[in-house]
Amino acid sequence: MDDTPTFASVHELATRLRQRELSPVELTEHFLQRIERYNPKLNAYIAVTAERALASARAAENALASGTDLGPLHGIPVAFKDLIDVAGLPTTGGSILLGENIPAKDATVALKMARAGAVLLGKTHMVEFAFGGVGINHHYGTPWNPWDAATQRIPGGSSSGSGVAVAAGLAPAALGSDTGGSVRIPSSFCGLVGLKPTFGRLSNQGCLPLDSTLDSVGPMVRTVRDAALIYQILAGPDPAAPPTWGHPSEDVLENLEGDIAGMRLALPREDFWDEVDEEVAAAVHASTRVFADLNAHVDDISLKELDDLQVLRSRGSLVAVETYLNLKDELENNLDKFDPIVAARMLDGKDFLAVDYLDIQNGYADLRRRIAASLHAVDALITPTTPIVAAAVEEVDQEDCYFPINGLCLRNTMAANLLGLCAISLPCGFTRAGLPIGLQLIGRAFDEGRLLRLAHAYETAMAWGQRHPEMNAFD
Amino acid sequence: MDDTPTFASVHELATRLRQRELSPVELTEHFLQRIERYNPKLNAYIAVTAERALASARAAENALASGTDLGPLHGIPVAFKDLIDVAGLPTTGGSILLGENIPAKDATVALKMARAGAVLLGKTHMVEFAFGGVGINHHYGTPWNPWDAATQRIPGGSSSGSGVAVAAGLAPAALGSDTGGSVRIPSSFCGLVGLKPTFGRLSNQGCLPLDSTLDSVGPMVRTVRDAALIYQILAGPDPAAPPTWGHPSEDVLENLEGDIAGMRLALPREDFWDEVDEEVAAAVHASTRVFADLNAHVDDISLKELDDLQVLRSRGSLVAVETYLNLKDELENNLDKFDPIVAARMLDGKDFLAVDYLDIQNGYADLRRRIAASLHAVDALITPTTPIVAAAVEEVDQEDCYFPINGLCLRNTMAANLLGLCAISLPCGFTRAGLPIGLQLIGRAFDEGRLLRLAHAYETAMAWGQRHPEMNAFD
Repeated sequence: MDDTPTFASVHELATRLRQRELSPVELTEHFLQRIERYNPKLNAYIAVTAERALASARAAENALASGTDLGPLHGIPVAFKDLIDVAGLPTTGGSILLGENIPAKDATVALKMARAGAVLLGKTHMVEFAFGGVGINHHYGTPWNPWDAATQRIPGGSSSGSGVAVAAGLAPAALGSDTGGSVRIPSSFCGLVGLKPTFGRLSNQGCLPLDSTLDSVGPMVRTVRDAALIYQILAGPDPAAPPTWGHPSEDVLENLEGDIAGMRLALPREDFWDEVDEEVAAAVHASTRVFADLNAHVDDISLKELDDLQVLRSRGSLVAVETYLNLKDELENNLDKFDPIVAARMLDGKDFLAVDYLDIQNGYADLRRRIAASLHAVDALITPTTPIVAAAVEEVDQEDCYFPINGLCLRNTMAANLLGLCAISLPCGFTRAGLPIGLQLIGRAFDEGRLLRLAHAYETAMAWGQRHPEMNAFD
Repeated sequence: MDDTPTFASVHELATRLRQRELSPVELTEHFLQRIERYNPKLNAYIAVTAERALASARAAENALASGTDLGPLHGIPVAFKDLIDVAGLPTTGGSILLGENIPAKDATVALKMARAGAVLLGKTHMVEFAFGGVGINHHYGTPWNPWDAATQRIPGGSSSGSGVAVAAGLAPAALGSDTGGSVRIPSSFCGLVGLKPTFGRLSNQGCLPLDSTLDSVGPMVRTVRDAALIYQILAGPDPAAPPTWGHPSEDVLENLEGDIAGMRLALPREDFWDEVDEEVAAAVHASTRVFADLNAHVDDISLKELDDLQVLRSRGSLVAVETYLNLKDELENNLDKFDPIVAARMLDGKDFLAVDYLDIQNGYADLRRRIAASLHAVDALITPTTPIVAAAVEEVDQEDCYFPINGLCLRNTMAANLLGLCAISLPCGFTRAGLPIGLQLIGRAFDEGRLLRLAHAYETAMAWGQRHPEMNAFD
């Protein structure tokens, strides 16, 4: 088998599987071989489940051969961020404290992927407890961003391994989770499409919580169609997970190709544009011309809610309170087992006052109501996903610059989580040095269908000559 | 006009209005005269809106005469607890700090009552900021429980004035609000039917919040049918109030008369029965025989959730955090303007830690899920509403006994709020001294229809020879 499946989309692979050009077992073996070859340097996977994957692939192969077709994910290899429970495998959450944490049950999203016939290749590295946007992990190692073989660059976090696995062709698709940008940031730095569904749209049951009012599992893939395809499988209410809302999603695949003429996009003028790298700003502004050529309206917008959001954010992190609560005993007794850049922020939760917590929480709830009204006539906001492209690990991994850069990585993505919206990151170009640039579209709450349609129209108009990292350098 | 409408139910009055035995104006004048006569001693109303009431009554009279019938509340005088906004009238919330607080808009419940044709007689006294179950208010005075003319007894709180107004025949119906028992406790002490709907069933928009995760507005009336009738008007989603759930209620009036044979009631053995007055215990136990005679099943039940609830409650009051937040400036700068028995508990919120707040909140959420499962095969729990009957104000209003008695008053009712259930208090007898005893039925979340049917069956079987306070003594 030649290298062709390496950077193919799930949709293409599904077509080739049905044309018998490829079989699920061949496909799985192909990716397992690539993992064996590249993972030692890239450090994308924390655990590879080769035997299990081959058994699943054989089952898929037999099923497809006998005419049982579970749909486009049937027989497709995938990777999961290591905070998604898979029965019998450790869920480390990127922490050495959880090395022995072996769940008895699959997370709802894992079960849904399995029922759709996906083949699990393994679990991917992540920032410890998913608490960070840069992608560094001092205990299990930082995955290597494949877009630069010479210098180790940050993969983006916290779904760092999922980003690197897909970008490097070690899986056609992966699941990440996004509390403040953890699907979109690594998608931006690794040149992928990453969707953060609206909080409440899909089940977090069986996923290690970071902030249980914000966490959203989402796909990290090569194309918007693949994002729609996996989103469609994951979305929907879960009786076991109270925060999932009742109504099922529309058929986003059916509506993906729709015309976007007349749809309304807006560039928020607020601090989404502060400290944005020149090449990033140019690429994102260029994207607005693509939308305009598709007869969408593109306007500037000024949203008071975004200013107010910054004021609320400056008052402290509610995530710190929840993580401190969840890990209190370990933080008090095993502080040395934590990554210092993670523990520092968790400890901020210890003395946080309940009145401030409730006041800030009320403030966010109020902003969510207000932004819903303000976005009544806006189908999506356009922003850079990250103000910068992937920096060198060496530059970032120093006490005095880690925290500001982490803040900068999260700034533009976090807004969608805190405001209860859905958002997607997709490639919109490369810097002269060859690093991917991410475009973020932020959609209304529970309006993923429209968001995906806009993103798909842009992607189609751009017709990227699929560009991939130079993998030979990693041999 | 003779005295007959005084203690008639809303349902009876509605019938008499349509038979032209009475007119809305006559009815309104009747109650306004009674208020003028008895309110100086009883202190049920904080504000009487006589002119406005007469104008509404005339409008109702004209509408009914011309064939426009808005249903059973059309032309019926009612009273609202003074935390429900009525445009143009002060909403004091029982606090002298809010004497000048005049809202521009009606609360959703006030608007719904107005649209149903109800005639507002005035606003009723309450515990300051609704924070207390005894019914004492040191600034505006404590309403006098009409069941004892010689000794001033507690009316129960916090909807103290609503309880006294209806019990004394100064209104046929009133609205209260219930965060920990504030509809049911005064209903118990004043011999009324009081319904606390499930949190989320109706809108709190325009009602002063006490605990915005628990507050439920509810009717305080003479009969279960009247409770059903007003509940039916108030229930339903409100786009302006996010905590209202989507689905409308069933038609509870249509199903009120249904047979209760085979329905399953249970007496929880947990601390609902500690420190219960002997006469109260006897009356509540006697009610179980009434249900058994109606061929309902009555069993004992032991619910782990109720024990766990007490453990959580002992860790501190989340209400204190919210009230401290809402009234921070006033508590810091105008402490002397607060009732000391109220401010003391609010100040507990100041130093509460966010991790404890979140942990307790998570604990309640978990208990709500667990109780829903445990009550799968139980239609209602039977408990005393209050372990005691109305005590003398003099006995209670002393620093060393106020807090324990307040805790005792709230204990049995608070469980329904914290567990997210619906509940009703209804009269189940009198002590030898002639004080009313309240029976509490606690139903499943969003199962008000069944709860009302059970209560109605009991009430019908008991066929009380309507007993009312001796009002002559108050002249």
